[in-house]
Amino acid sequence: MFSPLIKELIESLRCLPGVGPRSAQKMALYLLERDHQGADRLANALREALDKVGRCSSCRTLTEETECQLCQDPDRDAKSLCIVETPADVVAIESAGSFKGRYFVLLGHLSPIDGIGPEELGLDRLEILVQHNQVEEAIIATNSTVEGEATCHYIAEKLKTLNINVSRIAHGVPMGGELEYVDGNTLALALEGRKKL
Amino acid sequence: MFSPLIKELIESLRCLPGVGPRSAQKMALYLLERDHQGADRLANALREALDKVGRCSSCRTLTEETECQLCQDPDRDAKSLCIVETPADVVAIESAGSFKGRYFVLLGHLSPIDGIGPEELGLDRLEILVQHNQVEEAIIATNSTVEGEATCHYIAEKLKTLNINVSRIAHGVPMGGELEYVDGNTLALALEGRKKL
Repeated sequence: MFSPLIKELIESLRCLPGVGPRSAQKMALYLLERDHQGADRLANALREALDKVGRCSSCRTLTEETECQLCQDPDRDAKSLCIVETPADVVAIESAGSFKGRYFVLLGHLSPIDGIGPEELGLDRLEILVQHNQVEEAIIATNSTVEGEATCHYIAEKLKTLNINVSRIAHGVPMGGELEYVDGNTLALALEGRKKL
Repeated sequence: MFSPLIKELIESLRCLPGVGPRSAQKMALYLLERDHQGADRLANALREALDKVGRCSSCRTLTEETECQLCQDPDRDAKSLCIVETPADVVAIESAGSFKGRYFVLLGHLSPIDGIGPEELGLDRLEILVQHNQVEEAIIATNSTVEGEATCHYIAEKLKTLNINVSRIAHGVPMGGELEYVDGNTLALALEGRKKL
């Protein structure tokens, strides 16, 4: 029903996460019918980002500069390092506003089935960074999933050999969470991680 | 937190319908972290579609050809014309499979507030098409919204002066619809449009 170029646009929009056939069609027709300017901007932004965005030479986050802005910031404490899975995690922690150290972004988690091993996560570079910046504490903030936990353990073992403090962010009942509605696994973690008052 | 090019990509993704700040961020990071190939394909598809897709010279639907495939098809009955708002409506009717005539796509509805008048909907071209193809019946299938109904009435008045049959698609209870769950306006339409058995 649609001409080949429109079909191709619909198909290619489906690479976006959460976009199925119907939304892709809606998006394609919307852009072509009503927002040529937005589509043009999007095409340019995609092309530019694809051509120029690479990884920060220090923390591996996505950036078009050699070193990202956080790594360039002299006010950030290089002795405290937070290890996260993705750039979105950096944004999440930054918006909490309480961490003043630097980050290391794995861009993924260990997943042998997908061919993602320590090398793909840049763990050799992590070791060099820890030694170079004389990091005193590494806080591992990988996701609380099976893969995130496995990655955490692997990294913890590696970093302990470097004689630095290695810690894991706390897991438990979220702020404002009512016990009644918190799932069992989270409650088990909360009990296990109890603190003396 | 994000570098300028990534910010720009996130912003520009927001032109897509249904994409808010969080999904835009998720999409941008997904493309940059994990799907360079998909992003490249999308950038190319957007650019190509923007450069080449225009309107069918006959029915006004979106196509990169001078005349769309439906208008080129000699098996379609040119004497029966279905008038719809958007190319997506053509697809919807085509997938129902029962209409064998041709289409005229308004690409919108009358909306004086947005500066969309008869000219923007190509109604002058519609009249020429009706006369040129010796159309016998025009079926108006604009949406069942206030704007769609207003557009329908305007077009019906115009076409009646050309001495052809003008009809409107039926409105009522959808197939499989249970009366209990059908809204009052639809039920009122269904009662009004009752057929003698």
